[in-house]
Amino acid sequence: MSLIECIPNISEGRRQDVLDACSRAITATGARLLDVKPDAVHHRTVFSFAGTPAQVRDGALALFDAALAAIDLRTHKGEHPRMGAVDVVPFVPIKDATMADCVALAREVAAAASARHQLPIYLYEEAATAPGRRNLEDARRGEFEGLADKIVKPEWAPDFGPATAHPSAGASIVGARMPLIAYNINLATNRLDVAKKVAAAVRHSTGGFRHVKAMGLALEDRGIVQVSMNLTNFEKTPIYRVFECVKREAERYGVPVLESEIIGLIPAAALTQSAAWFLQVSDFSDKQVLENALADD
Amino acid sequence: MSLIECIPNISEGRRQDVLDACSRAITATGARLLDVKPDAVHHRTVFSFAGTPAQVRDGALALFDAALAAIDLRTHKGEHPRMGAVDVVPFVPIKDATMADCVALAREVAAAASARHQLPIYLYEEAATAPGRRNLEDARRGEFEGLADKIVKPEWAPDFGPATAHPSAGASIVGARMPLIAYNINLATNRLDVAKKVAAAVRHSTGGFRHVKAMGLALEDRGIVQVSMNLTNFEKTPIYRVFECVKREAERYGVPVLESEIIGLIPAAALTQSAAWFLQVSDFSDKQVLENALADD
Repeated sequence: MSLIECIPNISEGRRQDVLDACSRAITATGARLLDVKPDAVHHRTVFSFAGTPAQVRDGALALFDAALAAIDLRTHKGEHPRMGAVDVVPFVPIKDATMADCVALAREVAAAASARHQLPIYLYEEAATAPGRRNLEDARRGEFEGLADKIVKPEWAPDFGPATAHPSAGASIVGARMPLIAYNINLATNRLDVAKKVAAAVRHSTGGFRHVKAMGLALEDRGIVQVSMNLTNFEKTPIYRVFECVKREAERYGVPVLESEIIGLIPAAALTQSAAWFLQVSDFSDKQVLENALADD
Repeated sequence: MSLIECIPNISEGRRQDVLDACSRAITATGARLLDVKPDAVHHRTVFSFAGTPAQVRDGALALFDAALAAIDLRTHKGEHPRMGAVDVVPFVPIKDATMADCVALAREVAAAASARHQLPIYLYEEAATAPGRRNLEDARRGEFEGLADKIVKPEWAPDFGPATAHPSAGASIVGARMPLIAYNINLATNRLDVAKKVAAAVRHSTGGFRHVKAMGLALEDRGIVQVSMNLTNFEKTPIYRVFECVKREAERYGVPVLESEIIGLIPAAALTQSAAWFLQVSDFSDKQVLENALADD
């Protein structure tokens, strides 16, 4: 059975009744709600839900209905940048689903939501229609307040919907991406400079691995430092390669790895891939994992 | 959803129509048939199927019906030792199931099958009722031909059914065990003595790990040697520990590990457990695996 995850971010992090209505809208479609993370300071909530492509499509559309009915960005203030009442909606392939499936789903949801709400929508990441639109930060730059000026520029014509900001809901950014793994490696030292140097070595922006975002920070209360990372494509930049590189770079400064942490959820494939590498398993196939063999096609 | 696997071995490896009838009996219950491995020389077939406890119970009972109707051990000759038409029936916990669940299932199936067919049944491994009955080889010793003499001894009174061999079907051995992982490590050498020494170091019978069976053998065509293993309880003797021990022992003789092989299926937990160890993940929980979080309870 094909399984896709959707992780919409909406611009409401304070009113519980609105969040409850959004949760109900999602689960009414049969999709499974995995997580709801409100942040009052950011005035923003991240939902996570999964299901068949049809369930996830219907859940995302129901969330647009519920959120747009309750959120007015003209009176919204929070610390997190945002352009829409429904700000960002990524679709992620989890099981027996390809990135192409998620791109198709993103386009379908964008087309339907924009038509239903007269809402401009940009496609981003793997669903982007131009290289300059791939990056979420670029698509969101200017935010809700700057949208009226941005949207009339030819290079920022929306992919779906009118070239006019929605009065209360702005514009939304919908796309497809690989699952993101929040992965931290703690070093057995209090030397922050070492964590920063190692982070710089592995992250993409300073010459490291293509699908790694990283920063070095101090865990003051424990007297140690951490290389805090997001792994944005574990198939192309696998977790074991990042671990071994961090370990070797830290070793250069005489610092051992203390432990690592996986924050939140991780796809089984990211771990079975790593086990097969460390165990030097030749010709390993995901089909050898008993649970995969048992799953319905 | 609770999931249990059953891996019955029957004493028929040649007549395809009998094997087909057995397969149909299993799948008619809604259980999922994972594998059918007939061996004409052994005159024996290993079925593997999985499902809910009720599906697996019904599948096992239906297999008893189909196999006993077609197999007569009085005319059966094969290279593999056997005591029953349905020779061995282990139940294995796969997901959201405990060993206690499988022991209960083994007892339920043994009670029903023995009553229905007037068939003596011994319980083995985790379901055994006495320490001397745990080991399959001990329970099967004497085979079909020696059963009449064995079964009247007080220490070999069957756990269920009459203390008389079934005329055509002998006696069956039913039990519960952990999933078995067939795991081989290939060494980059043609020195068979090294493979044999390493196998002796890690296997239980010669002082090694409790849940490891191992032997050293030559892969003549490739000019290398192999430590061929069965890991019989990956929770208590994890795969990474065995790998690291084999690697270190081979290193002692100047021999590196070339690669390893996982034969057939492996539970996801055996691999995620290994990934978490190699990656030094602290406080890792199976619940962090996305697919587990998604699974119905």
